[in-house]
Amino acid sequence: MKVVCFGEMMLRLSPVGYERFIQAGSFGATYSGAEANVAVSCANYGLDASFVTKMPKNDIAQAGINGIRALGVDTSNIVRGGERLGIYFAEKGASQRGSKVIYDRKYSSIAAAEPSDFDWDKIFDGADWFHWTGITPALSDNAAAITLDACKAAKKKGITVSCDLNFRKNLWSSEKAGQVMGELCKYVDVCIANEEDAEKVFGITSDGTDTETGKLNYDGYKDCAKQLADRFGMKYVAFTLRTSISAFDNDWAAMLYDGKDCYFSKTYHLHIVDRIGGGDSFGGGLIYALSSGKAPQDAIEFAVAASALKHSIEGDFNLVSLDEVNNLLKTGGSGRVQR
Amino acid sequence: MKVVCFGEMMLRLSPVGYERFIQAGSFGATYSGAEANVAVSCANYGLDASFVTKMPKNDIAQAGINGIRALGVDTSNIVRGGERLGIYFAEKGASQRGSKVIYDRKYSSIAAAEPSDFDWDKIFDGADWFHWTGITPALSDNAAAITLDACKAAKKKGITVSCDLNFRKNLWSSEKAGQVMGELCKYVDVCIANEEDAEKVFGITSDGTDTETGKLNYDGYKDCAKQLADRFGMKYVAFTLRTSISAFDNDWAAMLYDGKDCYFSKTYHLHIVDRIGGGDSFGGGLIYALSSGKAPQDAIEFAVAASALKHSIEGDFNLVSLDEVNNLLKTGGSGRVQR
Amino acid sequence: MKVVCFGEMMLRLSPVGYERFIQAGSFGATYSGAEANVAVSCANYGLDASFVTKMPKNDIAQAGINGIRALGVDTSNIVRGGERLGIYFAEKGASQRGSKVIYDRKYSSIAAAEPSDFDWDKIFDGADWFHWTGITPALSDNAAAITLDACKAAKKKGITVSCDLNFRKNLWSSEKAGQVMGELCKYVDVCIANEEDAEKVFGITSDGTDTETGKLNYDGYKDCAKQLADRFGMKYVAFTLRTSISAFDNDWAAMLYDGKDCYFSKTYHLHIVDRIGGGDSFGGGLIYALSSGKAPQDAIEFAVAASALKHSIEGDFNLVSLDEVNNLLKTGGSGRVQR
Amino acid sequence: MKVVCFGEMMLRLSPVGYERFIQAGSFGATYSGAEANVAVSCANYGLDASFVTKMPKNDIAQAGINGIRALGVDTSNIVRGGERLGIYFAEKGASQRGSKVIYDRKYSSIAAAEPSDFDWDKIFDGADWFHWTGITPALSDNAAAITLDACKAAKKKGITVSCDLNFRKNLWSSEKAGQVMGELCKYVDVCIANEEDAEKVFGITSDGTDTETGKLNYDGYKDCAKQLADRFGMKYVAFTLRTSISAFDNDWAAMLYDGKDCYFSKTYHLHIVDRIGGGDSFGGGLIYALSSGKAPQDAIEFAVAASALKHSIEGDFNLVSLDEVNNLLKTGGSGRVQR
Amino acid sequence: MKVVCFGEMMLRLSPVGYERFIQAGSFGATYSGAEANVAVSCANYGLDASFVTKMPKNDIAQAGINGIRALGVDTSNIVRGGERLGIYFAEKGASQRGSKVIYDRKYSSIAAAEPSDFDWDKIFDGADWFHWTGITPALSDNAAAITLDACKAAKKKGITVSCDLNFRKNLWSSEKAGQVMGELCKYVDVCIANEEDAEKVFGITSDGTDTETGKLNYDGYKDCAKQLADRFGMKYVAFTLRTSISAFDNDWAAMLYDGKDCYFSKTYHLHIVDRIGGGDSFGGGLIYALSSGKAPQDAIEFAVAASALKHSIEGDFNLVSLDEVNNLLKTGGSGRVQR
Amino acid sequence: MKVVCFGEMMLRLSPVGYERFIQAGSFGATYSGAEANVAVSCANYGLDASFVTKMPKNDIAQAGINGIRALGVDTSNIVRGGERLGIYFAEKGASQRGSKVIYDRKYSSIAAAEPSDFDWDKIFDGADWFHWTGITPALSDNAAAITLDACKAAKKKGITVSCDLNFRKNLWSSEKAGQVMGELCKYVDVCIANEEDAEKVFGITSDGTDTETGKLNYDGYKDCAKQLADRFGMKYVAFTLRTSISAFDNDWAAMLYDGKDCYFSKTYHLHIVDRIGGGDSFGGGLIYALSSGKAPQDAIEFAVAASALKHSIEGDFNLVSLDEVNNLLKTGGSGRVQR
Repeated sequence: MKVVCFGEMMLRLSPVGYERFIQAGSFGATYSGAEANVAVSCANYGLDASFVTKMPKNDIAQAGINGIRALGVDTSNIVRGGERLGIYFAEKGASQRGSKVIYDRKYSSIAAAEPSDFDWDKIFDGADWFHWTGITPALSDNAAAITLDACKAAKKKGITVSCDLNFRKNLWSSEKAGQVMGELCKYVDVCIANEEDAEKVFGITSDGTDTETGKLNYDGYKDCAKQLADRFGMKYVAFTLRTSISAFDNDWAAMLYDGKDCYFSKTYHLHIVDRIGGGDSFGGGLIYALSSGKAPQDAIEFAVAASALKHSIEGDFNLVSLDEVNNLLKTGGSGRVQR
Repeated sequence: MKVVCFGEMMLRLSPVGYERFIQAGSFGATYSGAEANVAVSCANYGLDASFVTKMPKNDIAQAGINGIRALGVDTSNIVRGGERLGIYFAEKGASQRGSKVIYDRKYSSIAAAEPSDFDWDKIFDGADWFHWTGITPALSDNAAAITLDACKAAKKKGITVSCDLNFRKNLWSSEKAGQVMGELCKYVDVCIANEEDAEKVFGITSDGTDTETGKLNYDGYKDCAKQLADRFGMKYVAFTLRTSISAFDNDWAAMLYDGKDCYFSKTYHLHIVDRIGGGDSFGGGLIYALSSGKAPQDAIEFAVAASALKHSIEGDFNLVSLDEVNNLLKTGGSGRVQR
Repeated sequence: MKVVCFGEMMLRLSPVGYERFIQAGSFGATYSGAEANVAVSCANYGLDASFVTKMPKNDIAQAGINGIRALGVDTSNIVRGGERLGIYFAEKGASQRGSKVIYDRKYSSIAAAEPSDFDWDKIFDGADWFHWTGITPALSDNAAAITLDACKAAKKKGITVSCDLNFRKNLWSSEKAGQVMGELCKYVDVCIANEEDAEKVFGITSDGTDTETGKLNYDGYKDCAKQLADRFGMKYVAFTLRTSISAFDNDWAAMLYDGKDCYFSKTYHLHIVDRIGGGDSFGGGLIYALSSGKAPQDAIEFAVAASALKHSIEGDFNLVSLDEVNNLLKTGGSGRVQR
Repeated sequence: MKVVCFGEMMLRLSPVGYERFIQAGSFGATYSGAEANVAVSCANYGLDASFVTKMPKNDIAQAGINGIRALGVDTSNIVRGGERLGIYFAEKGASQRGSKVIYDRKYSSIAAAEPSDFDWDKIFDGADWFHWTGITPALSDNAAAITLDACKAAKKKGITVSCDLNFRKNLWSSEKAGQVMGELCKYVDVCIANEEDAEKVFGITSDGTDTETGKLNYDGYKDCAKQLADRFGMKYVAFTLRTSISAFDNDWAAMLYDGKDCYFSKTYHLHIVDRIGGGDSFGGGLIYALSSGKAPQDAIEFAVAASALKHSIEGDFNLVSLDEVNNLLKTGGSGRVQR
Repeated sequence: MKVVCFGEMMLRLSPVGYERFIQAGSFGATYSGAEANVAVSCANYGLDASFVTKMPKNDIAQAGINGIRALGVDTSNIVRGGERLGIYFAEKGASQRGSKVIYDRKYSSIAAAEPSDFDWDKIFDGADWFHWTGITPALSDNAAAITLDACKAAKKKGITVSCDLNFRKNLWSSEKAGQVMGELCKYVDVCIANEEDAEKVFGITSDGTDTETGKLNYDGYKDCAKQLADRFGMKYVAFTLRTSISAFDNDWAAMLYDGKDCYFSKTYHLHIVDRIGGGDSFGGGLIYALSSGKAPQDAIEFAVAASALKHSIEGDFNLVSLDEVNNLLKTGGSGRVQR
Repeated sequence: MKVVCFGEMMLRLSPVGYERFIQAGSFGATYSGAEANVAVSCANYGLDASFVTKMPKNDIAQAGINGIRALGVDTSNIVRGGERLGIYFAEKGASQRGSKVIYDRKYSSIAAAEPSDFDWDKIFDGADWFHWTGITPALSDNAAAITLDACKAAKKKGITVSCDLNFRKNLWSSEKAGQVMGELCKYVDVCIANEEDAEKVFGITSDGTDTETGKLNYDGYKDCAKQLADRFGMKYVAFTLRTSISAFDNDWAAMLYDGKDCYFSKTYHLHIVDRIGGGDSFGGGLIYALSSGKAPQDAIEFAVAASALKHSIEGDFNLVSLDEVNNLLKTGGSGRVQR
């Protein structure tokens, strides 16, 4: 199974521990991005994963490439050039203080890339699955055009297409997002979202949903998922269900709609080490689960277990093995020492 | 609004993470003190804050001055001279193990300062508020005399005076404290305390109060506050209400008495990153809230929210902005990522 | 009171914070081992503790010796020689992700030691107590033979012998363990175990016990302890009772059987900093409590309080003083700052 | 003496020690820029230093402001707004391996600033000296226009203007630089340069100069300086004279031309800790020396001694006091312990 | 050009900076080995490099694999299994104190590997060059047999074989080395050595050589190289020439003998950051230089420049690009900042 | 051979690497003192070393005790009590910038100790050598009185007494020093000094000596040594001879006068890692060398070699073994890797 992921990889700079930005004397440096995170997850589970992007020709970008190459992701389709690597600063929250992210991703090589930079026919050679997220077309009109090229090329080759809506309000407006994503989602077979995405991008809501308080509305999810699937002809729609109790404590679960029924996963109470990349690790788990033929209930349990583990890991990448996810599914997560 | 804070600034040396003193191969170095912490809070909320003390003429003291100057506190009234900067070692507790503090603050420049070191008339030029805590007069008889000078000068200029009782049993006895503070508190308009302070300094108790078990006795607080206010003619008395469940888990709330009624805040469940400075951040929040004309209920909610956030921050300083406190008041603290 | 502990000391290598092995750019280096941990606990409480092992003649082993010598453990009976120091890598778990240990302890100096390396008559000169654990005889046939020599020598001198069963499935099989430990336990006066040890080593079970789910079965413990005590003529059998809720949250208690009655301790809810060495710190606490003549209920409370504190401390050693354990027994562990 | 410095402040990210970019797991974070460095030097020597720039409204920029505010630089004239803070990555060289800098400073707030952002009349109120470098006008046409505005306003108020040519080939071409700087240098009283700058910006050379080999040509310097001074009517031209033996070993000296004579300083053999900011520290030293009325020989010795010390200090800022520079001038730098 | 390197990869544990082993509270963790180092150098210069070894199936070994995979080395031929990864501890020397290495590499997976673990015919598919060092056959008789298998398979396919004698006295005796290497060297086309290796392995000396004092004897080298080449029919023999002045200061040069003439390189004065891997980086440079058709003088200059740069880099890997080596060849290494 | 050392142990706080005090975000924490350093050296060479002082009863002091106990120094004669542990801050110099020390040692437990705290008869039981330095009597009149008690007790028991003059101008004046040391030196058999000490304490000079420039005056040393020996009836006078070229580069040698002849050692060129404790390591080496019966030339060479190595080691303690010193004496210090 070969999975191609397309998007941006950035340098993530994080203060040590729970220091605030204005205290930080040094930043931990990792490299990540929503789609690269999914590629790493897929590689961890033994899939052939390839990450596609455009990055500048300098050592900082090279360090990022090395980072995912170390984890077994194919980087041979990464185009080198352009002006800069996107950067984001991530301050870890604690207790009542939420995490904070400062983006410095404008003018990045991938945002400024041209459609002619990518030869999708060649990139998709031998591929079975194509994954992208709503962040990529939000980067620039060019990036949206490239995403559309990729979707069309994937469709032509009969490749399954998955998308995580991932609405980012500081990248584009709901109006723009709805318009661009409305076109792109026609090519999507598997859609990952949460209620907020569905509402902000496509105006899809159901009664009783309240994205601000973080209260979960199990009744409304199916309705939202059905609306999404019906509008774009998607085979699967998955919703992640996060309840934020504090920056340290979250409940985490998900739902999978297969066009007919809704399958709700077990809920994990998370005591969080690092929550960035949590949604991406869900995507990676879902791609693995569906592409390996798991039944809907098993698939959603796998994806949630995988992403529950992510919250215990520093950095954006979900550095867990297939065995570890399966072990959690079996033992339920009491966190005993494995000697 | 110009706030003048007077007291000691010390070098705080903390082992990394949860290491004990006897494990520590290095100490994180920050600079703080009860009154400096309040000055930083005030500066963070946009007030003109000035910190007054005496510190030696060496680079270690200079680093401390730079530390609060960085955060916008005026340091031009700090007197340089004397023998040493006070130091304290702070070991972070965990679970059933409490935090531990070793003081090495004797013979510090401020403890040995002379009344003639400070020209209060000049220091208070343009000031609206004067804040000190019970730690300062406890340092030495000279320090107590200087505090009295300052209180008198403030009164003469019509400056509001606030005091946090902050009883420290290793600095002085209850008898000495009661005597000195009894004189000083006559000048105080706004008093911050907890039940333990009220009892240990002034012998003020009410039925059912038990400071050892940490159980909160809502009924008794008003009685204590009233006794305090009546005895010294204070306009406001605020009590912080902490319930220690473990070194990691505390409940945190407060009460404000305005001479007539008691206003109790919301209670926050804190998962603690660093609790030192928690009380000072409450003081800073209260000064901001009262000086900006908030109603009692709003004022106490602001001060508690501000100090709840402090517990999520490394070091003594409450490095939060006005926006962040207001945001917590609005959202209730689920700790979501702010992108 | 002089306590002699015999076993292996290893180099422990731990990634920083919650990093996984494959993220680690550096490893914290500490030195420890089940029996060395007990020796350190005993020294902390003021007993004369001596640690006996064989370690190679190089600076890495020397650093380990220095580590326990720093804490007041006598190291003059450590034999130097052989090829290598055992190493183990310990990755800290979080939330649903359990801690992980990779052992690299084969071919260590102690595993390859000869009975003639140790002169037990001289080592036990003036000793009152001898402690070993089931890990030591599991290292090699030679190590088992040396342990037997030591037990016999101790018995001859009227020294109390304690043993923590400490079954490690990657060192030997249940069959081999049962056979070797069956012989050695005849010399044991005080036995420390948990239900899993009792079952895996001696096949001792009682109805309703389920070691996988982590549920505690108070009724069955007494039955197990009685079986153990009766089979080997032990005076005391102590069981630690751990309930793993997550890698961060455990409940912790214990039980002491004195040949007649069972004494259950208070249960502590632990929020864990480092759980490795938790069982050893229980052993050290129990040796102190029994050897200083505490009554059974007091003894088991002391041992549990001591080991509850261990979970709040980085590294394997339980770096707490007698005062701190007694303080916890008195205050119940709300974790307040000790100024 | 009040000095106003205008330019860009950036976030500098440096791998630990001598790690290369592709090895770096974390970056030390400091904030600096050619003109901010000069402002810090001036503040260290007791001058009133003010730094003027435009920076975005986020916590990363705030940390930079705090950094120089800590050192006593006035930041009240910094305009907040725009998109991003410039960043540069600095890898420290060693032996034969040169240091390496990757700039990511395009689209910064200051590069995109508008002339209307700055009210020079107000900024220069009470000022005696204005300093800028050739980096500022190289950032953008707008930045060049703002620099011109500032020069004119300074001239009108009779303020001394100094400029460090600081040619950066990756910011603009020699042609563009020559044209823009040719206009701006008409306002300059004190010019700091090296041979390479003089040639690359203004095409000024003298026989025997070879900027590639690093060999010093004492005879040609005076000629270059005279050409520069004559062309633009400058009062002083200073040349720094660096001989790179390796990344660790440099010889460092300078020359001052006062329109009549050339004064050469003593040469220091430097064993380098961090050479970035070396030139800026020379500028700061020269401004202090000339503005405090030192004779040419004394002035150039002071500036060279100050900047020799900079090479022993981590980060861009020259964290030395007046006493320390004077002490080096007196003792010659044997580096004895100062107890 | 595809290069296959065969040998051991170990975990290297290094105290921070210049700390001694007995001071170390943590160890920096890198992964390396003589032949892996060569593979990394080759990949850096753009060759297809593949590293072959046997490593255990655990996360520590995986981290090592990830480490070279990050740098573009093919790891698909690494066999997984066996008991342990070799470890070495490396303490950095300073001034008169030499660096110190403690090996803990016995019983490693590669030392215990079986010839049947490796299918050389498949491994060498498409390969042009095979590199191994004298460390590999020294690990065990099995490892020597596997090396012989590899040499024979390489010869059969017409692949160039290079070997670095790399005598390690703690792995085998001169006698054993002479016997085993005598057989293996018959397959070697390019031999890398120094005078000490030549003498200790093959008893080859020339008058005036004194390996203890570190004095270089230019006259004797050619004689030694000729003897080596003649005895085994090698096409090239390269000698590295190191003069140790102190742990910080070395002179570094080399010589290449092409069966007819001796080509001596320029000598670099090194101020050392990390000298481990210096010889390996010479090997990698020489393989690149010879395989890309450089003339002898150019080849030896390239290899020496490449390895001079290695001494400025932390860790065993020579993290330099082709451009950087060529730049040093052109500019001679004055270490100027590259902006 | 049992050596008793008496003096102060302090907490040393050092910024990371070459950071200045005002940059330091953390301080490395080590524990040391002139006499403790000598005790550690003696223990390293296999002597029975005991350190005597008074330290407060807190965990910071305990960490210091653990630090030397780890290295095998007997700490059973350390008196616990008093108010505080002395602290000193040490900033590492570089190139032209000298190291900087800020003392905060006033009011320490040892400075405030009473003669009755120490039972010298018991402390000296079985001792052969007593070492103290001129820092101890400079701490306070009490400390001087205790030192005198100790000298008298040692003399009575026939114990050899050594003293390092160690003049510290910030502890006392030359007048006071001369008076107190004049009395104490009557008991001294072996005196360690440098020219500056001899002049500042006893006004002993010889023509041509210039302590400011650091130039060595071989002719004058013998004269000084003879004057010292003659005045106090000392058997040996040793002078350390340091030439400071820069903070990084020193020449280091020494001279021993045996009442008749002067023996000059080899000179080492040091590239310094940490020079604090250099003189103490000379003292430790000399005590070992003389007490083990080495001839004067051998003794001075040993002491100089030992202390040359110290300059390559972080912290005050000279963490070298006898083998390493002997190896340096044999090989001359080319700093080769010891595998």
